Amino acid sequence: MLLSKLFPKPIKQGKKYDSPNATYLINGGFIDQIMAGVYSFLPLGNRVLSKIENIVREEMNKIGQEVFLPSIVPTKIWEDTKRIDSIDVLFQVTGANETSRKTNDATYILNCTHEDVITPIAKKFNTSYKDFPFGLYQIQTKFRNEPRAKSGLLRGREFRMKDLYSFHTSEDDLQKYYHEVVKPAYIETFRRLGLGESTVIALASGGDFTENFSHEFQTLCESGEDTLFYSEKEYIYYNKEVAPSKAPKIDETDKEMKPMEDVEGRGIIGVDELAKYLKIPVEKTTKTLLYENEKGEIIAAVVRGGYDINEDKLKKVSKSKKIKLTSAQTVKKATNAEVGYAGVLGLPKDVEIFWDDSTKDRLNFETGANKTNYHTINVNFGRDIENPKDFCDIKVAKEGDLDPKTGKVYKIFYASEVGNIFPLNTKFSEALDYYFTDEKGERKIVYMGSYGIGTSRAMGVIVEKFHDDRGIIWPAQVAPYLVHLIGLDLDNTEIKQKATDLYDKLQDQGFEVLFDDREGVSPGAKFADADLIGNPVRLVVSKRSGDKIEFKMRNEKKSELLSYDEIIEKLIACQTK
Amino acid sequence: MLLSKLFPKPIKQGKKYDSPNATYLINGGFIDQIMAGVYSFLPLGNRVLSKIENIVREEMNKIGQEVFLPSIVPTKIWEDTKRIDSIDVLFQVTGANETSRKTNDATYILNCTHEDVITPIAKKFNTSYKDFPFGLYQIQTKFRNEPRAKSGLLRGREFRMKDLYSFHTSEDDLQKYYHEVVKPAYIETFRRLGLGESTVIALASGGDFTENFSHEFQTLCESGEDTLFYSEKEYIYYNKEVAPSKAPKIDETDKEMKPMEDVEGRGIIGVDELAKYLKIPVEKTTKTLLYENEKGEIIAAVVRGGYDINEDKLKKVSKSKKIKLTSAQTVKKATNAEVGYAGVLGLPKDVEIFWDDSTKDRLNFETGANKTNYHTINVNFGRDIENPKDFCDIKVAKEGDLDPKTGKVYKIFYASEVGNIFPLNTKFSEALDYYFTDEKGERKIVYMGSYGIGTSRAMGVIVEKFHDDRGIIWPAQVAPYLVHLIGLDLDNTEIKQKATDLYDKLQDQGFEVLFDDREGVSPGAKFADADLIGNPVRLVVSKRSGDKIEFKMRNEKKSELLSYDEIIEKLIACQTK
Repeated sequence: MLLSKLFPKPIKQGKKYDSPNATYLINGGFIDQIMAGVYSFLPLGNRVLSKIENIVREEMNKIGQEVFLPSIVPTKIWEDTKRIDSIDVLFQVTGANETSRKTNDATYILNCTHEDVITPIAKKFNTSYKDFPFGLYQIQTKFRNEPRAKSGLLRGREFRMKDLYSFHTSEDDLQKYYHEVVKPAYIETFRRLGLGESTVIALASGGDFTENFSHEFQTLCESGEDTLFYSEKEYIYYNKEVAPSKAPKIDETDKEMKPMEDVEGRGIIGVDELAKYLKIPVEKTTKTLLYENEKGEIIAAVVRGGYDINEDKLKKVSKSKKIKLTSAQTVKKATNAEVGYAGVLGLPKDVEIFWDDSTKDRLNFETGANKTNYHTINVNFGRDIENPKDFCDIKVAKEGDLDPKTGKVYKIFYASEVGNIFPLNTKFSEALDYYFTDEKGERKIVYMGSYGIGTSRAMGVIVEKFHDDRGIIWPAQVAPYLVHLIGLDLDNTEIKQKATDLYDKLQDQGFEVLFDDREGVSPGAKFADADLIGNPVRLVVSKRSGDKIEFKMRNEKKSELLSYDEIIEKLIACQTK
Repeated sequence: MLLSKLFPKPIKQGKKYDSPNATYLINGGFIDQIMAGVYSFLPLGNRVLSKIENIVREEMNKIGQEVFLPSIVPTKIWEDTKRIDSIDVLFQVTGANETSRKTNDATYILNCTHEDVITPIAKKFNTSYKDFPFGLYQIQTKFRNEPRAKSGLLRGREFRMKDLYSFHTSEDDLQKYYHEVVKPAYIETFRRLGLGESTVIALASGGDFTENFSHEFQTLCESGEDTLFYSEKEYIYYNKEVAPSKAPKIDETDKEMKPMEDVEGRGIIGVDELAKYLKIPVEKTTKTLLYENEKGEIIAAVVRGGYDINEDKLKKVSKSKKIKLTSAQTVKKATNAEVGYAGVLGLPKDVEIFWDDSTKDRLNFETGANKTNYHTINVNFGRDIENPKDFCDIKVAKEGDLDPKTGKVYKIFYASEVGNIFPLNTKFSEALDYYFTDEKGERKIVYMGSYGIGTSRAMGVIVEKFHDDRGIIWPAQVAPYLVHLIGLDLDNTEIKQKATDLYDKLQDQGFEVLFDDREGVSPGAKFADADLIGNPVRLVVSKRSGDKIEFKMRNEKKSELLSYDEIIEKLIACQTK
């Protein structure tokens, strides 16, 4: 490709955006934003995206068959799985003007994922045990009504994704495919994308589908929006949302119990404000939240100040199927106080209290007084309230917390999710009545798994990982071109001919070359554009290079003058890395 | 691929659908319908579609740069071009449930085409004459709120398309690119898709954009929904919508003028009914329609019974910018009669009459009496109404019509449009203020062209062209697999081994093979499936084939026993066709 013909040329002193991937991809002319979370892929960006998707495709072809499912489907599809009202990012499609609606006034769903679509198709064709297991995948555009579209390609309203679905006759078979087939394929995929070294598998929530964890492929990077808790001794990464955690002990300076008293603190609700007002450490304050479970029972969740409740953990600990915060009315009925003053003292007997371990081992702690505007201080277990039988873990883990298993402080990493694998088990097969006939002619439920890779997001993550302050440093296998050939002194016919010949020869040899053939552009500007675009190899032909060609890797500082044959050798080495 | 693992297996005695492509693609397991005009591409279908799109991509890469534009865009994009209310198939996107809408209540447009999207992007980057000309294309899913989605992949609500847009500094440059660059690239594309011999270029309407024609690539096939008029001497195909036409002379049996009279025909409006009632040939009836132009002037369009008015022709002939049928009220005011009884006699003087040539050379013709329920018969030029100065062509061409240029009867063909090329000229650059700076620093308007190929439709058209009553006959270059290998007598270990070895060896040699390895399926059923799926080469390994392999082309009757080396030779020949 001739850079003089490339659409568009790189933007020299471009704007800085909210993330490196946005900054470099936009200024490099890879993508163009049309609105928050929606981008056009321009020729350079389209090349990178295609290369990423082809690598994904090659690896997925080893474990499944490629399909291409519709983006718009009847609303009934999503009603059947009862997800039409519960998926909070779902989009719908209708005629855009009166004429269009008069023609056909139907409403369709614009898919953000395809479990709901593929299950009925699988059920239509494969219902004998002989047909199982099987895996179907596609690479496609997805749509999400994303509230916080941001960070370039990391969080979009319209984005590209590979989604694989697998179908099994037993949970065992699903687990086997999940761990022995998909996991290795994912590891190989991310290796080939250049993300192998920095991508880890983290345990994440299994959602409504399973007691087990799901697994996320997380690329460690500073700008990542996920927080991982790494347990060094266990070699396990947990997504913050599921990290088991033990609070570090507080630095207890009190030696003895002080007299308990109620203190007025009108309108003071937040723990930081409260601690300041009461002149006690935040850790001595206590947060009590009341929840209602699916049976209408009220439960109290108690953590020490500075922590939040992890509702998934609370649900498990309290053996509830569903929990939700009680209404202000119920709070008032149970505590005789407005929201914000609930405490652990004098709660109705039928309210079960779940104490987080963070509330342990404290003298003279604070709690809401169950009296509007009042807080009780200097509360003590054993004296003012019964010593809890159990302490549990119902908090959102935070930096400084310990892994309860090893007792060691977690290491914290920021990361961006590039893939996930999810045991759906029977969630969709039950909803859609998908059974198979086994060897004995018996009707049995189908087990399913679902496995995603965000291909456009992976492109953004690669840039987050591989850039410096001058631009992108693409791994060879996903770079728009392997070679960025710069011609200098092109007003000299001989040099121009030499550069053009090199361009032609390299292309004839099958190498992908972007040739900066522009005349009247300064060497400095050409080098800056090469660094910004970030192709792995930079070649320069100029008066200075003489009979040789200047060779430089984008990720190295030194350049060297090499012969054509030496260049070819280097290029082959780059390609096969 | 093992047929035993293929998703799904072909459906043996499948249903018949509304078109051969729907019937064979659905029963062969290539596609699955989720609603009218929306299909999933299953593994076989996805392979074919990918091959088609890769051929299109290879040809387009020679003339443009590939991009990938968004499907959802702000409504403003379509408001800026004033097309948001005028494109009658346009879809919009909003949150699908309350939570989603609460998150973000914006409305987006789901694109059916991308002129409106790409023009602002081009304008953002390329504004110097040095940047021109350039071409950008994409291959993508499009969405249309199609009223009559039907005929399998021929007319869809969601379909795949390649769309190329070109940008130029002059109309000349656009015309040059249009005719000398795009046309040959299209011809080569359709040749490679196997449609070369049956695809013709037809002249079609240039829409609002140009006085010139646009060009459609039409594949001749019985089930096509377009009608082409072929002028043999001129070697020109016209789409019915633009075919210039001269009506064949009527078989005039009257020798002299009869007395004119008004005849009551209460409620009789349609020409067939009227002709029967009046006992005259349909050709002696006359249809008069009143139109209003953009200045509010009323014009009368007159054709003989059996023809319809072509409003585009009428617009040109009457030199109007816009025309529409007048309201019933205006008809009554102008004719003193209800709609249906308008005629040519006694119209107000300021109503200009346009006489189609079909009304010429008739004696004793009928016309509406401009009196409700009455028709005037035995009207004659010269006696009852002035001889028209001019006759013109304002009719929709129909079978039997002559090319006015050659005076020869058109040949009629049915065809399906697989591509079109369209000189947009300055339509979008004017609407979006897209100018460039020329060599002299002057600001000049940009010229544009737009060029489509329906890739999923092309897949349907290929099936329409290449099938017999047993199934599809794919051209090798777009077939899901080159080879359909059938193993028979697979309970015999030796034969099974031989078939498996052949499968492996062919794949090692780089041939694409679908291997029917199913046990317990009859030879007849396997042959039927092979014919239905339609891969170009069928190989059979069985007890009967001995040391050799049975070779048969899908499109030939005879099979022959060949050695492995002979088979390889044949396969190479098939591939390079």
